This record gives sequence, structure tokens and C-alpha cells, in this order.
Amino acid sequence: MLEQKLKEVIRDVPDFPQPGIIFKDITPILKDAHLCTEIVEAFAEQVKDLKIDVVAGIESRGFLFGLMLANKLNIPFVPIRKQGKLPAKTISESYKLEYGQATIEIHDDAFAEGTHVLIHDDLLATGGTVVAASKLIEKLGGKVAGFSFVINLEFLKGEGRLHRFSENVISLVKY
Amino acid sequence: MLEQKLKEVIRDVPDFPQPGIIFKDITPILKDAHLCTEIVEAFAEQVKDLKIDVVAGIESRGFLFGLMLANKLNIPFVPIRKQGKLPAKTISESYKLEYGQATIEIHDDAFAEGTHVLIHDDLLATGGTVVAASKLIEKLGGKVAGFSFVINLEFLKGEGRLHRFSENVISLVKY
Repeated sequence: MLEQKLKEVIRDVPDFPQPGIIFKDITPILKDAHLCTEIVEAFAEQVKDLKIDVVAGIESRGFLFGLMLANKLNIPFVPIRKQGKLPAKTISESYKLEYGQATIEIHDDAFAEGTHVLIHDDLLATGGTVVAASKLIEKLGGKVAGFSFVINLEFLKGEGRLHRFSENVISLVKY
Repeated sequence: MLEQKLKEVIRDVPDFPQPGIIFKDITPILKDAHLCTEIVEAFAEQVKDLKIDVVAGIESRGFLFGLMLANKLNIPFVPIRKQGKLPAKTISESYKLEYGQATIEIHDDAFAEGTHVLIHDDLLATGGTVVAASKLIEKLGGKVAGFSFVINLEFLKGEGRLHRFSENVISLVKY
């Protein structure tokens, strides 16, 4: 099945980005075009009963399958980017990192009020970025219709932080 | 035709990232799933007579159509990323910016020696990043088979700097 196949392909990189962390590297997935297609089809299948008008992908790795999924669903793709990257008028949301903080932004005309948005990223860890992304969607008058991740690092308990935005948390591989 | 359609959709944002610059914003393209499909099909058509084994996309916006194009061509996608982002062993290349410098990296096992690589980004400006990306491909023993861009800002004369790596410079919109 897909989860098993993905686990065989995803590469463990020890001590990245810092000592003691084992990083889940998805770049070997990207080398397998057929597997990429399977991922997008699995997402599309799992969201088929949700009302979704737009896919919002989080920079940078959320751009990879995010745009492909939006294309597969035949709906718009909206990028959520790091501070200072989007050229037109934006709204922003800051969140805490282990040391310091980060800010993400979305164009303020990204979608109309009442739009149902699927938030996509490659990996769910503690959920800080995804919570900030969800707040951006709600600030623009959108509804978070769900979340899709290739990987959910369940031991970091990020999923629980997302349920106040939507119960629909989809992931293809769990650790 | 596609170029005209794209020019109608691409948005001019004045004074970004600095006063006096008119930024070409591709985010409205991403809202149109059919147009995204047309872009990928146009790239696929234009590279069909080239020998290409891999598409390498430059972070972040080169991830968008880069992965879709690789998928369409049924070949691997390789990310070229900003310094410190790729988890496994990398090689790097620095290049000058107007003020200061930037560094990009690729995994040193991204592809085998002799691989023919199409380098993709959303936009060709002065070509600094793309020249650095080309050097990374050659350092790994690859051959730059060509370049694909949604937009070529011809007045910045980036294309001339790419010809020593490959004469095949494809773009869908020229300004």
C-alpha cells in the first residue's frame, strides 16, 4: 500500500537541522514520478467528500504537491509565503519557533469571503506554521475545510492543535 | 495564444521588491487550473525533442511548475534550494546579488553522472541564480540540457549568460 511504499522511499537524515533530530527527507519521493502521481491521487480521493474551493500551499515544500493537487481538483492554488516574498498587499501572522519567531503572509485578495480552503504542506510537526496559516485563512473570511500532509509526525502532537480549525486532517504517512 | 493569455493574467506590482521595480506577479496564474495545465503542456511540447532525464527546480517558485513538468514528462524532479535547507550531503554555489551574495545547494546524490538536466524556474531576470544552478549541475557531472521559464525579462539580458551551458532556453512570456 501507499504508506508502506512511502516509508521505504522517505530517507532518514540524522542530526538535521540540529543534533538529535532525525529529519524525514522527501526528496527521494520526488525522483519517482509514478509515486508523485499516486500521492496526488490519494489526496484527491481522501478529500473528495469535502467541500474545497481552493488549495493553499505553505512555502516551500507545500508548493510541490499543493499545486499538483489543486490542478487535479481543478481549483485555484494560493501560496502562503515567508515574510516579504509576496509582492502585492498581504496580511501576515507571526508564530513562535524554538528560538525566536517567524512570520508568514498571504495576499489579501487570495480568495473571496466564504471560500473553503484546504491547507497543504509536506509535513506536520508541532503545527506552529499550520496554525498560523489557518489564522490567515480565517482573517480573510475563509473557512479551513481541512489539511493535507504527506507526513504526520504524530509523536509531536501537532494534529490536536488543528482541530479547532477543522477535524479533517489527512496524512499519507504517520510516524 | 498562450503568451497573450498569460500577459493578461500576470499582474504588475509597482515598487516591489524596491522602488522603481515593476514586479511580475504570477500568483493570478495559479488561480487558474486550466491555465496551469496549458503551461505544463506548452513546456512539455517545447522540450519534446530534447534529451532530458531530470527536471531541476529552483526554490521556491521553481517548485511549482517544475514538479508538474517532471510529472508530465514522467521523469525525476530534483530541488535546488537555498543554503541550509537540504538535509543530506550537498554541494553549493554562491553568486553575487546587487548587495551581498546568496548560496544555493543541491544534494550530491541528486542524479548520476552524465544525466541530462532541464533547469526550471518561474522567471529569468539577470540569470545569476540560474548560472549558479547550472554550475551545480555540471559539478555533479550532469549536462544542462536546457532551461524553462514561464517569464523571460529579456531587457535584463539574462539569456545570453545561459548559452555557455545550453542554447535551449524556453520561455512562455517575454517582456
